[in-house]
Amino acid sequence: MRLSRYFLPVLKETPADAQIVSHRYMLRAGMIRQQAAGIYSWLPLGYKVLKRIEQIVHEEQQRAGHIPLLMPTLQPASLWQESGRFDAYGPEMLRIRDRHDRDMLYGPTNEEMITDIFRGHVASYRDLPLTLYHIQWKFRDEIRPRFGVMRGREFYMKDGYNFDLTKEDALHAYNRHLVTYLRTYERMGLQAIPMRADSGPIGGDDTHEFLVLAETGESEVFYDAAVTDIRLGARDIDYDDKAQCQAVMEEFTELYARTDETHDAEEFDRIPEERRRSARGIEVGQIFYFGTKYSEAMGATVATPEGERVPVHMGSHGIGVSRLVGAIIEASHDDKGIIWPEGVTPFHVGIVNLKQGDAEADKACEDLYAAMEAAGLEPLYDDRSERAGAKFATMDLIGLPWRITVGPRGLKNGVVELTSRRSGESEELAPEAAIARLIEIYAGKL
Amino acid sequence: MRLSRYFLPVLKETPADAQIVSHRYMLRAGMIRQQAAGIYSWLPLGYKVLKRIEQIVHEEQQRAGHIPLLMPTLQPASLWQESGRFDAYGPEMLRIRDRHDRDMLYGPTNEEMITDIFRGHVASYRDLPLTLYHIQWKFRDEIRPRFGVMRGREFYMKDGYNFDLTKEDALHAYNRHLVTYLRTYERMGLQAIPMRADSGPIGGDDTHEFLVLAETGESEVFYDAAVTDIRLGARDIDYDDKAQCQAVMEEFTELYARTDETHDAEEFDRIPEERRRSARGIEVGQIFYFGTKYSEAMGATVATPEGERVPVHMGSHGIGVSRLVGAIIEASHDDKGIIWPEGVTPFHVGIVNLKQGDAEADKACEDLYAAMEAAGLEPLYDDRSERAGAKFATMDLIGLPWRITVGPRGLKNGVVELTSRRSGESEELAPEAAIARLIEIYAGKL
Repeated sequence: MRLSRYFLPVLKETPADAQIVSHRYMLRAGMIRQQAAGIYSWLPLGYKVLKRIEQIVHEEQQRAGHIPLLMPTLQPASLWQESGRFDAYGPEMLRIRDRHDRDMLYGPTNEEMITDIFRGHVASYRDLPLTLYHIQWKFRDEIRPRFGVMRGREFYMKDGYNFDLTKEDALHAYNRHLVTYLRTYERMGLQAIPMRADSGPIGGDDTHEFLVLAETGESEVFYDAAVTDIRLGARDIDYDDKAQCQAVMEEFTELYARTDETHDAEEFDRIPEERRRSARGIEVGQIFYFGTKYSEAMGATVATPEGERVPVHMGSHGIGVSRLVGAIIEASHDDKGIIWPEGVTPFHVGIVNLKQGDAEADKACEDLYAAMEAAGLEPLYDDRSERAGAKFATMDLIGLPWRITVGPRGLKNGVVELTSRRSGESEELAPEAAIARLIEIYAGKL
Repeated sequence: MRLSRYFLPVLKETPADAQIVSHRYMLRAGMIRQQAAGIYSWLPLGYKVLKRIEQIVHEEQQRAGHIPLLMPTLQPASLWQESGRFDAYGPEMLRIRDRHDRDMLYGPTNEEMITDIFRGHVASYRDLPLTLYHIQWKFRDEIRPRFGVMRGREFYMKDGYNFDLTKEDALHAYNRHLVTYLRTYERMGLQAIPMRADSGPIGGDDTHEFLVLAETGESEVFYDAAVTDIRLGARDIDYDDKAQCQAVMEEFTELYARTDETHDAEEFDRIPEERRRSARGIEVGQIFYFGTKYSEAMGATVATPEGERVPVHMGSHGIGVSRLVGAIIEASHDDKGIIWPEGVTPFHVGIVNLKQGDAEADKACEDLYAAMEAAGLEPLYDDRSERAGAKFATMDLIGLPWRITVGPRGLKNGVVELTSRRSGESEELAPEAAIARLIEIYAGKL
């Protein structure tokens, strides 16, 4: 993309009402625009990041055999009356009446609807196990929306639902989701720690929240420092292998790590003192096993091999897709702006032309641009007639992890400059060598 | 995808309340499930088609330099009060009140919001021309929703908005959109004819609707038969070339083609009688030029090169993404089911194993499956223990354009059968040759 033809409305001033860094930088980098309290437009740069995150979530869910579908944003109240949650949910549920005076709502989550789909179409144990998920806009009418997309009202979420014949199978689905989530966050350059949590209005016994440590987190968390040393890494996972998924789950959850809701001071004190940590965390996902809570209430049963009809065991599993954009920024920025991890960056590399209009510099930039596109990289070329300082400031603010700087002086020596946004380190390279380096950096990430 | 692990709830019976063929087949093929009047869940197969269509729309918009962003589904009433449409819109607008008693609405379209984004961030002619678009869920509270996704309440639409300094530039944007739409529909295997139409609540003078001819169409249309012979085809388009876009527009719109709203019997009668046609059509898109209607009302101005502030010239341009799923089926089916065009098919090819459990047949199917995935094709492998007739009926119903049938008899002679869903013709081929044929068929469509 050429910046002269893009729509990237960066702001020079820091918006007064933005209290946390991700909100400030998303506004300043022209990623979002507030349209009402807690309701945002995703401007082109923000939209690109949102889509990259969504794509990673899709890939990791489908890798585990989970099947995508799409439920609508509006739901009939009748489904929620069946589960008893229509009255229980409180004022955060946005209730709507249509022109025929029918009660509807903007879905805050989809346990009821997915259970309705299941009971309408599945009748036998032979169709299990089954995990369906969607990524859809949801609404929670927060009384005081704040922190930009971190605590908005209209938000984008992946929610998945497993249907299993037995509790054992459903716990495998729980573990399987835990593994997919670990991989999902790691691909985004995030460390999200599974912590034992409270199930809230979803219900159920088993639940873990995934928390990214950050000063601005809304939750207080307590953990054994050793938990931050564990990585999933590139290990090969067979998602049908119950023992393997269980082992990963145990590895990641056996050390103490809890939110304040489930914190147990006595147990915490048994951790060696030098490893005891309390901090703040941002919730970026949660998994639940809630057994037959919804299937019993709504009559979602299957025939067993013996011909008996039993309610299915279920769980639900959510990742906050729009919230992750903010969480990644909270975890990865400096005082000049955002620093995108390679896995989610909106553009792979920025090209800064130090002397726009200089025939040689323009040609070198055009050649780099074409070669990058041919290699499957997405560059953002700052082709405006601005001074170098302004171009650098924009690139630093929007946080592309790599920048190539092209100027007449370097070109005389046959080199351009490749700069890491994270370390600030620069390297002089022939243009072809710079592209080769970028291809290497993004291997497996395109 | 292996059918045994997929969620494809096909129905044997024809649903009684579905009046048109696309609605019937979408229900029977397990593509959608109604959740409330005019509100559907997109089950996995339907979701895949929806996403293929969305992807084509994105590609063709971005090819023309149009920039994607994403506006929220809910909008504050205040924006619509500025344009005067909050009161004018009528009961099809779903009005909502949030917990703080603020008036909101579920967006049926986005002229106001995009104008608000524009005025908030753009101030100079130097940032023009600019075309922004999004693909987002919308709501229109139809009094009597029917025909499945063809006239639903919650629907998925691409809507794009151009901002230009002059009327001439805005008319180029209009022509450019017309060309992108022609290409978009042709890639989906559809002929959609641009017809002069009425602008309705959007406003403006220039507007064309794109109509697919089909008996079940909601509009009566009148046209010169010669208009159905024109194709855009593979011609190379430079979307910055005003004369070229204008020429394409004229080529496609100079012959008589109008909806009943703008029909002129006298002019129609001047067409040679043997070319006069009246028929029914399904609207799948519409483009508008409406000048400064919204920019004046909402103060969206830019500075000209002379320093004067003038309201921008705008147009809006919509494609009914969810509606297209139905329209394609209306245009492409037979009495056994859907016939997907290659450009939008949910899976590229079906594999039918005639003797599941037979070691040789199973292995041949697995090998085909792996080879197809390696070639970038997405196969649907019917690996269920069903009789051949049931497997064929499912494949015919869901409408994959190509089927490979594998059975012990053919394998003895080293062949499988490749069948075209459209023609019904079969060909016996070595497995490798069948894959080579499919790769050829889908060249440029993956």
